[in-house]
Amino acid sequence: MLNPPQQIEHIGIAVKSLQESVPFYTDLLGLKLLGFDTVESEKVKVAFLEIGETRLELLEPTSPDSPIAKFIEKKGEGIHHIAFRVDDAVKRLNFLKEKGIRLIHEVPKEGAHGNLIAFLHPKSTQGVLIELCQPGADEQHEHV
Amino acid sequence: MLNPPQQIEHIGIAVKSLQESVPFYTDLLGLKLLGFDTVESEKVKVAFLEIGETRLELLEPTSPDSPIAKFIEKKGEGIHHIAFRVDDAVKRLNFLKEKGIRLIHEVPKEGAHGNLIAFLHPKSTQGVLIELCQPGADEQHEHV
Repeated sequence: MLNPPQQIEHIGIAVKSLQESVPFYTDLLGLKLLGFDTVESEKVKVAFLEIGETRLELLEPTSPDSPIAKFIEKKGEGIHHIAFRVDDAVKRLNFLKEKGIRLIHEVPKEGAHGNLIAFLHPKSTQGVLIELCQPGADEQHEHV
Repeated sequence: MLNPPQQIEHIGIAVKSLQESVPFYTDLLGLKLLGFDTVESEKVKVAFLEIGETRLELLEPTSPDSPIAKFIEKKGEGIHHIAFRVDDAVKRLNFLKEKGIRLIHEVPKEGAHGNLIAFLHPKSTQGVLIELCQPGADEQHEHV
């Protein structure tokens, strides 16, 4: 049996503008801004905000063909995905595939901070976009 | 200055059927099912799933005029809201109102387990439906 996911790794939130959305979370809610990053492969700029053992990741598209730009066009700004921290991404993807779950990524790809990440298809998860995230070797430095 | 929210209290997920959605989280992801509840005021049945320090709450409408039924009709099944645990709901609502944030509830109402809860309006939060949740007196028994 696989270990259950230990925690929410992060919650991804699609926004049109980091500049316009970050101050609500920092100045009005009081969350700690951990930093910014750009993920070229996903064509997004990211702001990382700490909340308990997890993070909010605000995602601003850097191009009209970014998956986040398409999401905003279709559904508007808002919560985009939930990432579960797992320690066995490859085995878990194989297990889910065997059980009939559609996968966006059949093998994990490298995400930020050397993490291994893969998305499940929301058609198989009642509309919830779920990311599996296995911490990478530089996990100790994950807080950018 | 108000204390920042300490953690994600829960993530609310709108589903058409608990029966059809719970097994993915329990049997395939391996999360622990904490129990079920019915919240008459919101016209939903809820399944609570443990994940690290937080929970997923799957929300099935019990009536076509439930807010969750309307959400599903408009946007489809999926992630509905994020609840932040706070220790000062009344002060925080007043502070946010002063800062120009639109509130769905200007004063907290009683939710499950004696919690005080209030929603902010997503028009003021880039499309993210945010709940503030202040643990009630029976917080020790929150895991149903």
